[in-house]
Amino acid sequence: MSLDNQLVVVKTSKSKYLAVIDVEKEFITNEGKFSFSVIKNIPSKIHSSTGVEFKIYHPTYKEFVLLMKRGPQIIYPKDIGQIILEADIHKESNVLEIGTGSGALTLYLLNILGTAGSLISLDVSRKNQRRAKKTIDRYMSTNNFKNNYNLDFITTSLVDFNYKEYTEIVDTVVTDVPEPWEFFENNIVTKDLKWVSYLPSISQITKFNDVLINNKFENIEVKEVILRDWVVDKKIVRPSNKLVSHTGFIISGRYIKY
Amino acid sequence: MSLDNQLVVVKTSKSKYLAVIDVEKEFITNEGKFSFSVIKNIPSKIHSSTGVEFKIYHPTYKEFVLLMKRGPQIIYPKDIGQIILEADIHKESNVLEIGTGSGALTLYLLNILGTAGSLISLDVSRKNQRRAKKTIDRYMSTNNFKNNYNLDFITTSLVDFNYKEYTEIVDTVVTDVPEPWEFFENNIVTKDLKWVSYLPSISQITKFNDVLINNKFENIEVKEVILRDWVVDKKIVRPSNKLVSHTGFIISGRYIKY
Amino acid sequence: MSLDNQLVVVKTSKSKYLAVIDVEKEFITNEGKFSFSVIKNIPSKIHSSTGVEFKIYHPTYKEFVLLMKRGPQIIYPKDIGQIILEADIHKESNVLEIGTGSGALTLYLLNILGTAGSLISLDVSRKNQRRAKKTIDRYMSTNNFKNNYNLDFITTSLVDFNYKEYTEIVDTVVTDVPEPWEFFENNIVTKDLKWVSYLPSISQITKFNDVLINNKFENIEVKEVILRDWVVDKKIVRPSNKLVSHTGFIISGRYIKY
Amino acid sequence: MSLDNQLVVVKTSKSKYLAVIDVEKEFITNEGKFSFSVIKNIPSKIHSSTGVEFKIYHPTYKEFVLLMKRGPQIIYPKDIGQIILEADIHKESNVLEIGTGSGALTLYLLNILGTAGSLISLDVSRKNQRRAKKTIDRYMSTNNFKNNYNLDFITTSLVDFNYKEYTEIVDTVVTDVPEPWEFFENNIVTKDLKWVSYLPSISQITKFNDVLINNKFENIEVKEVILRDWVVDKKIVRPSNKLVSHTGFIISGRYIKY
Repeated sequence: MSLDNQLVVVKTSKSKYLAVIDVEKEFITNEGKFSFSVIKNIPSKIHSSTGVEFKIYHPTYKEFVLLMKRGPQIIYPKDIGQIILEADIHKESNVLEIGTGSGALTLYLLNILGTAGSLISLDVSRKNQRRAKKTIDRYMSTNNFKNNYNLDFITTSLVDFNYKEYTEIVDTVVTDVPEPWEFFENNIVTKDLKWVSYLPSISQITKFNDVLINNKFENIEVKEVILRDWVVDKKIVRPSNKLVSHTGFIISGRYIKY
Repeated sequence: MSLDNQLVVVKTSKSKYLAVIDVEKEFITNEGKFSFSVIKNIPSKIHSSTGVEFKIYHPTYKEFVLLMKRGPQIIYPKDIGQIILEADIHKESNVLEIGTGSGALTLYLLNILGTAGSLISLDVSRKNQRRAKKTIDRYMSTNNFKNNYNLDFITTSLVDFNYKEYTEIVDTVVTDVPEPWEFFENNIVTKDLKWVSYLPSISQITKFNDVLINNKFENIEVKEVILRDWVVDKKIVRPSNKLVSHTGFIISGRYIKY
Repeated sequence: MSLDNQLVVVKTSKSKYLAVIDVEKEFITNEGKFSFSVIKNIPSKIHSSTGVEFKIYHPTYKEFVLLMKRGPQIIYPKDIGQIILEADIHKESNVLEIGTGSGALTLYLLNILGTAGSLISLDVSRKNQRRAKKTIDRYMSTNNFKNNYNLDFITTSLVDFNYKEYTEIVDTVVTDVPEPWEFFENNIVTKDLKWVSYLPSISQITKFNDVLINNKFENIEVKEVILRDWVVDKKIVRPSNKLVSHTGFIISGRYIKY
Repeated sequence: MSLDNQLVVVKTSKSKYLAVIDVEKEFITNEGKFSFSVIKNIPSKIHSSTGVEFKIYHPTYKEFVLLMKRGPQIIYPKDIGQIILEADIHKESNVLEIGTGSGALTLYLLNILGTAGSLISLDVSRKNQRRAKKTIDRYMSTNNFKNNYNLDFITTSLVDFNYKEYTEIVDTVVTDVPEPWEFFENNIVTKDLKWVSYLPSISQITKFNDVLINNKFENIEVKEVILRDWVVDKKIVRPSNKLVSHTGFIISGRYIKY
């Protein structure tokens, strides 16, 4: 199997890099360089001409997301687990994602949604969606997934989105956009639906909480995940000094058609 | 379809209860009672003879876990999302769970592991496993999953477990037992493996961290999830006064066979 | 010196109680009882007729506040240290406290404000102030403070308070009332002043933040103290499961007359 | 009154600086410069030749500590309030500080300890103590304290310190050194004493906890302060993204001579 185009972590004693293998190119760092063509297996160890050891292996989802180039709006891994839980997503869920963005959450959803589940991902930017698709395909082929995924993109602004035709399919909505209330300007929910929105500010949460109540959602909860990293060395055991203090709040609710 | 044996949440204006429908019985609370046989659809609303309204609907995973009767060792939903993420689990993972316990984590794993994935769950207690199986089957049939799940139980103490025969199948280990280091007393890891352990005390973490290092695991990280609930009312927006302050630490590492 | 009327902690192997010594009475607990008259020194150990050991000692401020009977509005010790710091209070500060309440914060301020400092404490309830005075005097005499304190009470609603006559004396305001903005309805600040308010809800903080800005305060900061208790035993080292998750936010600002 | 040698904050629309006024010098920043001699009052506003406005005012303790040049070991303001509370320090306490260090905590203690209290500060480095003294005097004269302070320095390594002669004076010990257990190598406590140590790592806490127990201290508690900053703007209300995640743990105990 050719290793070309596979995603790998390149790890030295000091740093981690994310790379896409291109057998005609070199990988160059401050600590030395090597030609991708010397990689024969993944995982493996290779050495630069100056003797630096590079470990090569496939990234986990978390490494992939944390190391990939990104815009400002990327969702943090620490919140993703909680979003999935609050949204009650499982392998057979049929999810509408509002805000494809970088595709980081899209990819995570496709890691979970199996052959009996499906994902529709909405974004105003076709460019975002094309980039997300590329990201997803590279990750999936690198990780050698056996089954294909069910993903459709919708390219529209949220305020112009017509939910009606998706009512029968979708059981769960997840949003990562600044104004999720735009959904409700032209749409009403009439069938069982779980909803989770990820919002950076408590003022947005307060506003959207009102919108959910007005639209007869119940079991509304607001959560915030604070994740602490710990340093565990032989002599020293303490919380890390570095912390992503705040990323976003998670608001969840459920529309139940009695 | 008969509603008998289905899991439901019974919700009043004051409380939530978890119930298993038994059409020959009544459901009795401080706020009133009703006969299960009056439930014709799920979801639906019914009324007690004294006029109390009961909402009946299927539980989310989180409601199910938080409302079910439990022993002391149950894993908290707030940690489950993070465990899945740190273990890099997706629908095609092949997971060994050490510590079936109440089956709460087992059930969550089966919500994610699809037709191309599989789960082996180890526990010293066959009783735990029988109870977990019952819990899982009731939840799965209630939620009307289309595909079956791939689950095998192993009944043994961890110190007597022979990992060798599972080496080729398993790519991920998740533990929720107090002494995960017992695994390494009679086993060595020789193939790529992701490992996550959930432990209540930092002293256990320190000890197991050493064991992972000695067994050549890398990318070891220790995390702690602090989840804050927020109260969002018309006039009042503040963190909830109630909080599960501490449940456990999550230690993750990866064995990579270069 | 008579021990009558002194504040003591009565500690057994299981519990801590706060008591006021009354040599004509008995102290009765589930674990046994004793007559106060048997206490000859503080600290000391005494035994009940059934052999239970009671340790008797003077409370710290924190023990006193946490053990004393209280209404709903008491300020938590964890926040008091931060309030003092944010308000920049030292032994020579001249403080206006808005909201005498239970007197817990009043007492702490008097623990710090020395002979060259002073405290004015405002409350709408004369009853609160009488009770606070009694609390303070008992604590001070128990702890055998050498110097007296400078404390004046003002009994008025905040909206009716005329700040003008205190402008030259007060350099710092600390409030523990739900609507500190009432101060600014009939008063303006024209001289250097440090201000700290303690408020339970972020919606109150948002409102008061606007009021401080409109009144030309600067260096405005909003803080929240999360205090974690740790359990440190021989084998177990972990955060406590119990936590006061949320008490209040602290907003501070400074009026500077250039 | 001459303003020479006074501590001031120099604040622009973008930054805050700490300065010591030297009327023969200029203050130079990226945003412009001015001659200290143009400052006629504190607080006041002055303008650079290029029209930049500088606000000049006296620092609060917190601004002083956060802006002053510092070595690695400085104690964070967020922990200082809690240390004072846990140590039960008031204006009449007689405190032994182990670890003068930068003098930041020494200064805070002197802000509280009044004419009836006293401070002894121990450090192995006379240089530290001289620098601390200078810091304290400049801060005190800038803030125009009326009463003098009671401070003695002891210059010795902790392991060589002979506590015996201080037993009758000291009622409270506060330490900010990495190995507070050295105190107990050659000393025993025989009289009522409150003790608080500030330590960065939970492994140090575990070790010192044992030492306190062996020396018959009781009421031992371990705390950790997590301080969250909030951003409160017109539209945005959220926790700050920046956070000092971890600084140290606070362990407190009390020796009671029954």
